Amino acid sequence: MLHGLDQRTASIYAPVQDQLARVEDKLRSLAETETSPVQPLLKYVTDVGGKRVRPAITLLAAQFHPHDPERPVFMASAVELLHLATLIHDDTVDNSPLRRGRSTVSNTWNPHVAVLFGDYVFATSATFVCDTQNIRVIRRFSETIMELASGQLLEYFNAFDAAQARELYHDRIYRKTASLFCTASESGALLGGAPENEVQALRDYGYNIGMAFQVGDDLLDVQGDASNLGKPVGSDLLNGVLTLPTIMLMERYPNDDLVPALFKDPTDSAKLEKVLEVINNSTILPDCERVVQDYCDKARQAIQDLPDCGPKRSLDDLSSYVISRRR
Amino acid sequence: MLHGLDQRTASIYAPVQDQLARVEDKLRSLAETETSPVQPLLKYVTDVGGKRVRPAITLLAAQFHPHDPERPVFMASAVELLHLATLIHDDTVDNSPLRRGRSTVSNTWNPHVAVLFGDYVFATSATFVCDTQNIRVIRRFSETIMELASGQLLEYFNAFDAAQARELYHDRIYRKTASLFCTASESGALLGGAPENEVQALRDYGYNIGMAFQVGDDLLDVQGDASNLGKPVGSDLLNGVLTLPTIMLMERYPNDDLVPALFKDPTDSAKLEKVLEVINNSTILPDCERVVQDYCDKARQAIQDLPDCGPKRSLDDLSSYVISRRR
Repeated sequence: MLHGLDQRTASIYAPVQDQLARVEDKLRSLAETETSPVQPLLKYVTDVGGKRVRPAITLLAAQFHPHDPERPVFMASAVELLHLATLIHDDTVDNSPLRRGRSTVSNTWNPHVAVLFGDYVFATSATFVCDTQNIRVIRRFSETIMELASGQLLEYFNAFDAAQARELYHDRIYRKTASLFCTASESGALLGGAPENEVQALRDYGYNIGMAFQVGDDLLDVQGDASNLGKPVGSDLLNGVLTLPTIMLMERYPNDDLVPALFKDPTDSAKLEKVLEVINNSTILPDCERVVQDYCDKARQAIQDLPDCGPKRSLDDLSSYVISRRR
Repeated sequence: MLHGLDQRTASIYAPVQDQLARVEDKLRSLAETETSPVQPLLKYVTDVGGKRVRPAITLLAAQFHPHDPERPVFMASAVELLHLATLIHDDTVDNSPLRRGRSTVSNTWNPHVAVLFGDYVFATSATFVCDTQNIRVIRRFSETIMELASGQLLEYFNAFDAAQARELYHDRIYRKTASLFCTASESGALLGGAPENEVQALRDYGYNIGMAFQVGDDLLDVQGDASNLGKPVGSDLLNGVLTLPTIMLMERYPNDDLVPALFKDPTDSAKLEKVLEVINNSTILPDCERVVQDYCDKARQAIQDLPDCGPKRSLDDLSSYVISRRR
């Protein structure tokens, strides 16, 4: 079992626990084989562990046909490393001192080091993908990095713009989050030797899980307990980032001026409190939770025709787990 | 002829001028086909032109055997885009307001945008490499990004450490500069269908041209005219970066304390003036120029057994051009 996983996650990951352990080994061995001044940085980011949801999806999606087991392990390692690289740069541009209660690379070293080290980790993830020897997977991986970066750029450029439609929100969270989940499941399916219809089914699964994951995250920001989440409640709003609960608020009360007023003066904590209060006292939160539930239902439906087996049940269970997740 | 190239460069590039024009088209079409808020950024960095030395080397290295002409064009575009991506991040971490007299992305927008947009350009370059359909080339490209990033990290971690040996300097400039030149020529040779011995010869050529290029750059920093270079003379020293002229200074006058004294107090302009004066009044500069010359000689020797033809003569001429270059 992976160190630090709760029992439920461990049971979901059970069909691929050996491969996941090999992913951990690959990540750890990066720091162990490095001798340059980059070594302490590699050790810092690979030591911390984590849920490893994305690599687990890659490995589970590969289990439906006989295949070379090495390739999904390379891909799963690449997917996790890419995730770590994006966190390094996101925390740098957001000036975040902490991530899940632990000092960020940018804070422990400095932004200069964090930008260059993030580049290094991006490139390392790409070399892992090359080891899959599959050009389609490699290309999809590069496109994913473009989507992740453009998702963050859109979030930045659209910040403090209260006129955004829900459509823009969906495009943005696809790019910044669901894109990598898609690629995790699609590449697992491809490297697992799945036929094209199953590749598409597993890709749809990843898309919907990723969307559920991000909407769930956005919900936590307006309802979560700050000590659990490792970041203050309302931080999206303070950064001018519109998420589903806030968009619903504006849709339902088009004549109220709560969000535009906050965006004009984001330092006014009374205005932030007011927005959060109205959201929490309306049906917005349960309605958002229904959106998360819908995405999870779609994820399960996407793979309903796959043969019943341990990995299939794990993918089903993972979708329920995303709903109940309180990190 | 490429817009803005001087006559000598244009004549060196003549055997591949059509392909280089196609590289320009590919770079320009990135901005033309983009509709998101990323578009103005793409236009800004692809509009500026430049010498295009690296893509020219890729295209020239591909000319020795019959081949699919499309693949080296993809590769050359990727090589130039990767170079542009590194400049975006380097200028960001160095807080540089200008690059060759033009405002940097970080300065025109801000560091937040520059980090994410740099990631986007890195990833775009990687998708171009995928279009070569050659896994060895794709892998080498990812390793190059690792080398470029680690070269910049080593420069940062070793800054203000006057005890560095010349060996460290060579490793660092290989990573931060020569690595991409190697990959430019090696990938051109591979995609041009060259046999392995020619691939190695052209790789050696790229290595030596790249080393000459960087030592030449380091020389410009202690002797150049600030208005020509677009950055102040002595900027490496001010940032604690040891280059060949300074290393030679410390090797020749081990009992003098000029460089360590400056590193203890980098804001003391009298100490900087003193270091530059001693370098300029010694034989250090001609000795460094001999190092550049040696690398260029080795570059020409590396490809001396290749058949005499236009591209071969251009590669030879390019090596002389690097020596005489005063950008």
